[in-house]
Amino acid sequence: MAEQVRVVLDAMGGDNAPVEPVKAAVEAVAERQDIKVILTGRQDVIRKELEKYPDYRKEQIEIVNASEVIETAEPPVFAVQKKKDSSIVVGMNMVKRQEADAFVSSGSTGAVLVGGQVIVGRIKGVQRPPLAPLIPTTEGVSLLIDCGANVDARPSHLVQFAKMGSIYMENVVGVKNPKVAIVNNGAEEEKGNALVKETFPLLKECRNINFIGSIEARDIPFGYADVVVCEAFVGNVILKLYEGVGAALIKKVKEGMLSSTRGKIGALLVKPALKETMKSFDSSEYGGAPLLGLKGLVVKTHGSAKAVEIKHGIFQCVQFKQQKINEKIAERIMEDQ
Amino acid sequence: MAEQVRVVLDAMGGDNAPVEPVKAAVEAVAERQDIKVILTGRQDVIRKELEKYPDYRKEQIEIVNASEVIETAEPPVFAVQKKKDSSIVVGMNMVKRQEADAFVSSGSTGAVLVGGQVIVGRIKGVQRPPLAPLIPTTEGVSLLIDCGANVDARPSHLVQFAKMGSIYMENVVGVKNPKVAIVNNGAEEEKGNALVKETFPLLKECRNINFIGSIEARDIPFGYADVVVCEAFVGNVILKLYEGVGAALIKKVKEGMLSSTRGKIGALLVKPALKETMKSFDSSEYGGAPLLGLKGLVVKTHGSAKAVEIKHGIFQCVQFKQQKINEKIAERIMEDQ
Repeated sequence: MAEQVRVVLDAMGGDNAPVEPVKAAVEAVAERQDIKVILTGRQDVIRKELEKYPDYRKEQIEIVNASEVIETAEPPVFAVQKKKDSSIVVGMNMVKRQEADAFVSSGSTGAVLVGGQVIVGRIKGVQRPPLAPLIPTTEGVSLLIDCGANVDARPSHLVQFAKMGSIYMENVVGVKNPKVAIVNNGAEEEKGNALVKETFPLLKECRNINFIGSIEARDIPFGYADVVVCEAFVGNVILKLYEGVGAALIKKVKEGMLSSTRGKIGALLVKPALKETMKSFDSSEYGGAPLLGLKGLVVKTHGSAKAVEIKHGIFQCVQFKQQKINEKIAERIMEDQ
Repeated sequence: MAEQVRVVLDAMGGDNAPVEPVKAAVEAVAERQDIKVILTGRQDVIRKELEKYPDYRKEQIEIVNASEVIETAEPPVFAVQKKKDSSIVVGMNMVKRQEADAFVSSGSTGAVLVGGQVIVGRIKGVQRPPLAPLIPTTEGVSLLIDCGANVDARPSHLVQFAKMGSIYMENVVGVKNPKVAIVNNGAEEEKGNALVKETFPLLKECRNINFIGSIEARDIPFGYADVVVCEAFVGNVILKLYEGVGAALIKKVKEGMLSSTRGKIGALLVKPALKETMKSFDSSEYGGAPLLGLKGLVVKTHGSAKAVEIKHGIFQCVQFKQQKINEKIAERIMEDQ
């Protein structure tokens, strides 16, 4: 059996805590023996929740008490500094001390990003750790890198994002020689804002990545690139608009179908297929967004994540550890310096 | 009868020229008497096309010969300088000499943007003319300003976009006291890149606009704001991703429905409703994007525009002229200087 991967799971984070994180932990260890899940949070609350599952694999689940909870509305830097006994800070400290390999949370994105940087810390040479969710496309998934909180990136940051994203897609998602593109406002090489124009030639020169040039936003959902590189402000717009346009369109389609008897009958018939399609275009199926470039993996799952997403997040950590992603990142970053 | 509005229409521009522009001209004048359409392009080609319509209102359509055509692939600055007898340059010169009030084209976006600035020219005080398409939302339409070719805007540009966009939405689209928001990577006031952080307080202080704060990309398709202000690179990403996510989702839904017999029957039944919905979420229904802040209106319709879109573009020009939008923009811009 492979070495056990130790994943700390924030039992207090997200809209559905502690119910869904605890359920995810129980289901994850039921499926795989090479995982140990360490639940951080209020011990009494977690114990009570675990009692719902009389038969879970006790030897693979541990509880580490943390008396505080960081709320989503709290200013993240202040919260991470002040709430030393919160589930997020306690969990990240375990990764820092190498008592665990990875940390998964559906809690405050800001606190997870801040904690990742100031507690877990960056791999030597990594300038800025990007948050890189997998987004659904008609062909599968692409990695959108960066969607983090640090905006106004420099060209050298984007080059590192391209490298880290390539390693992740190749080794964790399993895409051979992943196509890397930079988000641009046109396909022609002279297009772009100042940042893109400066970054483009650097990516072109970059060894070890399969750079295919610019990608226009229209082509992202069709999977033209496996690794979609952009500055975090733009990444945030892409990620949230994806969600918004999808939701708005579904709302309109439903309303449209229900406005006639013919449509209503048809709606009943297409419902299962429609549901299946929507599921495949739902980013929560893909297990959350890794924060890359840290000394240990941090995965941010949606605030509204259910057990299935959190479980996928845990499995991502296993793949990440077993594929030695951080060793690969450290090597690749140093190569070009 | 109101004074006739003189609209120059590029008969050579777009994928469907001259068929669709000529059709649009014929249909527009059939519907309204307060319009005169001036078709620019190769006289013989336009004449031949017009012969298809034996009964059109001849007194409302004029042809002005232009022997050259600017292709979409040509570098726009060079093309506008060199092809003095192209349909775009000839048409814009008519607006400049006040022989026409507005210019509509489905041709090269770059050439239209360049021509608007260098031939038609800016209203005094306007720093940068924004391209502002109407985008569909679940509530109707919003104005996305700026989606033009000039990226890396300054805060003062964005403030002018907010003002011009408000005037347009109020007077051309008919939204009373339109809600103005700036695209941001979070709802909290401390969020934003350097540009947004600098622009936010300026918009807050701005008189005569109904500024409601930040808008996250997720909320754009739900019509939370009537005027969505952003820098052109971000605007381009929003506009194209709108299109891309919509198209990808429809493709997936169709595939999903056709994968089972039950779904196939249902698909037949929901088809009309689905088609209607898609139409309401199709930006081509809204008549193209105005290039604001010029001494005369310039409207860019899609390269793939059909007659109905071009006709709406022509009607937009009428509303624009009759509502004295440029006089209002000139006043509002000067007010705060």
